[in-house]
Amino acid sequence: MSFELLRQVRSPKDMRGMSDADLKRLADEIREALLTIVSDRAAHFSSNLGVVELCIALHLTFDFTKDRLIWDTGHQIYPHKLVTGRFDQFSTIRRRGGLMGYPNPVESEYDLFVTGHAGSSVSTVLGMKAGDDLVFRDGRKSVAVIGDGALPSGIVFEAMNNAAGLKKDLLVILNDNKMGICPRVGGLASYLDKARVAPFYNGLKRDVSWLLNKLPLVGESTEKMLGSFKDAVKSFLHGGMLFEEMGFRYIGPVDGHDIRSLRQYLEMVKDVKGPVLLHVFTEKGHGFEPACKDPVKFHTPSPFRRDAENEIVPVKKSTEISYTELMSDAIHACMGEDDRVCVLTAAMCAGNKLERIRDEFPDRFFDTGICESHAVAFAGGMAKSGMKPIVDIYSTFLQRSFDQIFQEVALQNLPVVFCMDRAGLCGPDGPTHHGVFDNSYMRIFPNMIVTAPGDELEIRPMLEFALQSTSPVSIRYPKTRTERVEREVQPIQLGKAEVLSWGTDGNILACGTMLAQAVSAAQQLRAEGLSVGVVNARFVKPVDEAVVKKAAEAGFVITIEENALMGGFGSAVLEAAARMHLSTERFRILAIPDQFVEHGDREELLAELGLDAAGLVRVSRELSATRVASANA
Amino acid sequence: MSFELLRQVRSPKDMRGMSDADLKRLADEIREALLTIVSDRAAHFSSNLGVVELCIALHLTFDFTKDRLIWDTGHQIYPHKLVTGRFDQFSTIRRRGGLMGYPNPVESEYDLFVTGHAGSSVSTVLGMKAGDDLVFRDGRKSVAVIGDGALPSGIVFEAMNNAAGLKKDLLVILNDNKMGICPRVGGLASYLDKARVAPFYNGLKRDVSWLLNKLPLVGESTEKMLGSFKDAVKSFLHGGMLFEEMGFRYIGPVDGHDIRSLRQYLEMVKDVKGPVLLHVFTEKGHGFEPACKDPVKFHTPSPFRRDAENEIVPVKKSTEISYTELMSDAIHACMGEDDRVCVLTAAMCAGNKLERIRDEFPDRFFDTGICESHAVAFAGGMAKSGMKPIVDIYSTFLQRSFDQIFQEVALQNLPVVFCMDRAGLCGPDGPTHHGVFDNSYMRIFPNMIVTAPGDELEIRPMLEFALQSTSPVSIRYPKTRTERVEREVQPIQLGKAEVLSWGTDGNILACGTMLAQAVSAAQQLRAEGLSVGVVNARFVKPVDEAVVKKAAEAGFVITIEENALMGGFGSAVLEAAARMHLSTERFRILAIPDQFVEHGDREELLAELGLDAAGLVRVSRELSATRVASANA
Repeated sequence: MSFELLRQVRSPKDMRGMSDADLKRLADEIREALLTIVSDRAAHFSSNLGVVELCIALHLTFDFTKDRLIWDTGHQIYPHKLVTGRFDQFSTIRRRGGLMGYPNPVESEYDLFVTGHAGSSVSTVLGMKAGDDLVFRDGRKSVAVIGDGALPSGIVFEAMNNAAGLKKDLLVILNDNKMGICPRVGGLASYLDKARVAPFYNGLKRDVSWLLNKLPLVGESTEKMLGSFKDAVKSFLHGGMLFEEMGFRYIGPVDGHDIRSLRQYLEMVKDVKGPVLLHVFTEKGHGFEPACKDPVKFHTPSPFRRDAENEIVPVKKSTEISYTELMSDAIHACMGEDDRVCVLTAAMCAGNKLERIRDEFPDRFFDTGICESHAVAFAGGMAKSGMKPIVDIYSTFLQRSFDQIFQEVALQNLPVVFCMDRAGLCGPDGPTHHGVFDNSYMRIFPNMIVTAPGDELEIRPMLEFALQSTSPVSIRYPKTRTERVEREVQPIQLGKAEVLSWGTDGNILACGTMLAQAVSAAQQLRAEGLSVGVVNARFVKPVDEAVVKKAAEAGFVITIEENALMGGFGSAVLEAAARMHLSTERFRILAIPDQFVEHGDREELLAELGLDAAGLVRVSRELSATRVASANA
Repeated sequence: MSFELLRQVRSPKDMRGMSDADLKRLADEIREALLTIVSDRAAHFSSNLGVVELCIALHLTFDFTKDRLIWDTGHQIYPHKLVTGRFDQFSTIRRRGGLMGYPNPVESEYDLFVTGHAGSSVSTVLGMKAGDDLVFRDGRKSVAVIGDGALPSGIVFEAMNNAAGLKKDLLVILNDNKMGICPRVGGLASYLDKARVAPFYNGLKRDVSWLLNKLPLVGESTEKMLGSFKDAVKSFLHGGMLFEEMGFRYIGPVDGHDIRSLRQYLEMVKDVKGPVLLHVFTEKGHGFEPACKDPVKFHTPSPFRRDAENEIVPVKKSTEISYTELMSDAIHACMGEDDRVCVLTAAMCAGNKLERIRDEFPDRFFDTGICESHAVAFAGGMAKSGMKPIVDIYSTFLQRSFDQIFQEVALQNLPVVFCMDRAGLCGPDGPTHHGVFDNSYMRIFPNMIVTAPGDELEIRPMLEFALQSTSPVSIRYPKTRTERVEREVQPIQLGKAEVLSWGTDGNILACGTMLAQAVSAAQQLRAEGLSVGVVNARFVKPVDEAVVKKAAEAGFVITIEENALMGGFGSAVLEAAARMHLSTERFRILAIPDQFVEHGDREELLAELGLDAAGLVRVSRELSATRVASANA
């Protein structure tokens, strides 16, 4: 495809003169550009296919050089990037140095916030509206586009409640595709499902005779009559009542793939006073048959090749297993052995490979939807009843539960196990998805035991250890294929590190899966004549003080972790050293410096930050040189 | 009053045989006990007066040795404590070693979770229900009582959505007293207000003729007819539609001060299948006229004496100013000088003394209700528009915004100012209210500047500094009257500590309002012949490395802070020392050890933890003795 029209769209205003037919062709070209990208690499796909027409219609109706637009979460931002002057760079998306897969103000004035965590769009758009009304006073509009997957997130409710109270002119577009990453769950889902089966209607013109026919007959008992009447009224008002009751004006539903109709509706709601919710029905994966059929798989598909018939053919599939899969297997096994074990997630059923568990243990599997705060408090309740709940949530999204980890778990000292998937750098998703703060935030709270298995051999034992604990335990592991450090694995004991070897020149205290890098560095250094030991820390909290003491006395000490330096494992080691009055002159803390890390290949990013064997070798050499220098002095 | 009946109630079952008249007398005795307590000390009052009858009715209907009951937030737990065997100890409430002012499982099997942060009751009760259904399988019930103030909190919405999806038998009682701590705000508030003006009705027996009379006349235009019809239907279904749409069965409203009626309703809903919301109207302060008239003042009143006419007479009023008041004055002044400055809070208008600001600058004052997550994201939006938002929230409640501080503020590097009131130990409220983690969690995120003014002289300058910053800044200060360290205050510069004096034996790096204690310790030590300097750290991040280096070279170094040791200011100093390859053998970190701190008088608690002048003197002596010992060795 030549992308004839898309090439002409240097900015949204270049779409202004286009005919309906041309706009339809433009939509086709945008879909083609999306297909080209995901044929080449893992990227968000179905959601982007679903919002092509909505994106075009929005940019035709509003002027987002002044008006404000936030795409909630931001994974569906690709069409927006394509029509805001980034078509030429589009092939670089999710590559190091290239476009981000999420909005990024550095790339374009049309991107307002770097996002990735779901649900905050209504809050930020309301904030901008409140700010614009004070700063610019020029009536600029504010629009949030939010999916039905993000809708149940508590912050959305908080923001809508506040917007209604403030009576701000605000447009919230509910992009209803019946799916989050996984099929949606909860009361709101049933509510939206009911709306979907009802016929499309124009809010101002629908026929009331249908309703009037359902009115109660005289003679029925009041109670029975009331029940059926209430149901009838509910069906009649289906789509909007919930939002109208919250103080929003509800309009829709409207077909999200009909540009003309979308533009009419947007023009209509543009100048409505007060907060408005426009309900748009879209199809995830629209325009690409395989993605419509399996939207979960095509949320972020692996690269694939399209053949002539538009059928998909897998190009490459790793035979190796990921930490995610290994943990899922371990959870599955523990659930089979102990019927008190249950698992909770927050719309990460597919991401965390929990489908088999969901299917085999449906009564002990809980998916709360994108509601991390609730999920953790819910787990606290289950633990109180005597269950052994495992909370399986990505490290970065668990940040949403910080206060529930505090109050509902740590303060009660309840045995909840946190499996923190994607802890460390998450690669192409970038800074909103890197899970690089959990070492720091988990260890703050009393009663919490914070662990980091060293390799694949420790995943199952660590989970078993955690399930035996009477206190809460967190387990972190990265988004990557598993590694193994061949050895006789020592049994896991609370607060005990595993010493692989003691060095006479120095020792590396490796946190989590930095272990393999440490072993590799020690081997290289031995070849250079340096004796550097390797310790598998296992516990970020409690830190193994005996090991820290012995290491401090043996030579230099290097800690390494895939976490922020601020308050992380290295800090915990320094605190322990201070407690024991040790000298820390020859301690070095290797961790992620105090900056947000961009997107890119995980290994590449780690290497750049010196968090690999090469980095360890470099620092070890420096430290041993210092010793020699001071010995010579 | 002799408390004749209350004395007989050793456990809820002792209320079983009582007549309606006796139960009413019991309610009177409970109110009298509450009045006696708050005449003596600051304590939660109005909310407790409001739930007396509800508490009695609940314990008569359910058996909470098996059934589950959570009082959301927990500040209204007093009547529950009185009827669950704690009348004898009631006079100790909120005193060190006495009963907690919040639920506490250590005190009673009837208290299930230590709580204090609002909104998580529905989650924990749902979690216990899910757990009980798997563990006990005996049909035990689960009940959450939640106020209308906590209702808009996002986690409530998340939990209700999940409960509806799981179709669990669950009773949520909406204790609707029209108030949070401050008058409620937002769309939900208007919604509940509408419900309140409608007449009371019994859900199963109300008359439909009223509605039928409102049906549209033939001949009106469809549009007009629909509008009025919709309004009529809405009014008809007023109270319940929002909750029914979310998948709850709505029942009520019911008079929350009529024990008999409450018991009837509770018996009715007890065995209803699926999630039920029972709407109960109560009056905050019921039974005590002054509290009904001014429920904000009587939420947690200062001690007062009752005279014979039931009029209140203030006993003691401090003439000194609190840090809260000082900061409120500073914010007020800055808003007067710069119309870009605005302030946001989350139902802490009274707590943070913002009433004057609300009244004088209504267009730049935003109260989101108990919605901290939204408040911070909202502030991010306002900053994006060019405003200078100040988020004025207690340290402990700001934990709810951890992820929004990450994504909506720090990641965007937006200049939002966080005023963290009640940072440090909060006294009689206990562990849910102590703000002792913010030094640790605020400094985790890149771009964040974390400050702690040393005394009253620095509150206004620090706020002015923060408002000039192009990055986010947090400011912490404690819940206490202000102190002043007399000196020529040096201008505030980013990352620069203020050196009051240099010691030759050692130096104290004081974080925040520990400054006065440090000065006092240094004076005592000087009298003993020890030269100990005092540094006002001012910045937790960035730490003043030059000062740390100079201090390390000068002698021993003590850091002191009213924050958790894990990851706090002391850790930041240790990280800086490690970066500079300094020896830290003679560093001591004074902070709150890794445990939850109970309730009690703030000064008393600090002394016990060694976080005062005496503690500093003690540690200084030890450190100087070590030096002498090693010099002698």
